[in-house]
Amino acid sequence: MTAADVSRGRGRPRDPRTDQAILRAALELFTEHGHAGTSIEQIARRAGVGKLTVYRRWANKDELIAAAVESARGEIPNPGPEELADLSYAEISQVIVDALPVSARTLAEPGYRAMLAQVFGSSVTHPGVMAAFWQNHLLPRRHTAHLALSRAVEEGVLPAETDIEALIDMAVGAVVYRLLRPDPPEADELLEYLRTVYAQAGMIPRQ
Amino acid sequence: MTAADVSRGRGRPRDPRTDQAILRAALELFTEHGHAGTSIEQIARRAGVGKLTVYRRWANKDELIAAAVESARGEIPNPGPEELADLSYAEISQVIVDALPVSARTLAEPGYRAMLAQVFGSSVTHPGVMAAFWQNHLLPRRHTAHLALSRAVEEGVLPAETDIEALIDMAVGAVVYRLLRPDPPEADELLEYLRTVYAQAGMIPRQ
Repeated sequence: MTAADVSRGRGRPRDPRTDQAILRAALELFTEHGHAGTSIEQIARRAGVGKLTVYRRWANKDELIAAAVESARGEIPNPGPEELADLSYAEISQVIVDALPVSARTLAEPGYRAMLAQVFGSSVTHPGVMAAFWQNHLLPRRHTAHLALSRAVEEGVLPAETDIEALIDMAVGAVVYRLLRPDPPEADELLEYLRTVYAQAGMIPRQ
Repeated sequence: MTAADVSRGRGRPRDPRTDQAILRAALELFTEHGHAGTSIEQIARRAGVGKLTVYRRWANKDELIAAAVESARGEIPNPGPEELADLSYAEISQVIVDALPVSARTLAEPGYRAMLAQVFGSSVTHPGVMAAFWQNHLLPRRHTAHLALSRAVEEGVLPAETDIEALIDMAVGAVVYRLLRPDPPEADELLEYLRTVYAQAGMIPRQ
């Protein structure tokens, strides 16, 4: 019995396969139809469970969709800032370079791109999903990028007047924008693009 | 009688007020409910016209929504590349700086932000709207940015190895990303943000 079960006053232990089935159904429906086009009832039906089984786990649609989005990007690596804190620019940027192929493969998957479009598409009408995506997915990666760019400034690779936060927005923004533009990239093309943008931002050295 | 009427084999002259009413209704419904949540029937009803009146003007929903999105961003200035072709980096970047306050005001409007979210949100499920937005709205602005950055490289303001296309993606991407993040900016904050990002990209000098 998990803490979440106790806090909701339920006694039965949770079956992780049920959680997975619900998250998968929520992710599929959100990706296909967006936040507004998806209901808890449809999610429960596709997962083969009752609505109460869903509500026992997630308080509302926002929380469930945020968790489903969260579950979709487990593959993208991100070393924690603690692991990187004492490293040089060359060492941190090497860690970033090493992580790029797996990131490119995940980001270039049609399903990921479709999900990303729905996250951005629902950002104004249903800001909860974007807020969760921001907090859980983007912020930790911003910390890594911030560390790399701070070292680059300290070591004189980038000029002292560099606006680090703006540069991070520019690198992340370019990748999102490239993924949602007409003519989406294949994984190898996206890997090349990530290298180009990260190098232009100064997060990694030019090849 | 316009060329479009003739090509569709209709004899009656078009009333521009009807066009406006249809475009306004299409923009409102698309902004509120997205591409999938909007039908030609709903648009016609909100505009107070019959479905045939809509189909006489636009062949399908994609074309109509693209035209509606087009009509929403008339305020954002963009000098043509011809006007700028013979200017120096200082002159071109001054033109860009002068255009920023109007751009910031338009982009920061809640309605514009909501529309932008739907354009990006429908980019995978209904790529026609994004393709039109790309062609009509973004490409002409990329030409201006390209000219400014080319001059910056020629005049030694930016290093010779600058990747101009990547830098443009980064500047545009950062602005889109800033608009659709949680905690959207007011017009004056967005103006400051545009200045920071454009300066970091080298499109305008640092203040």
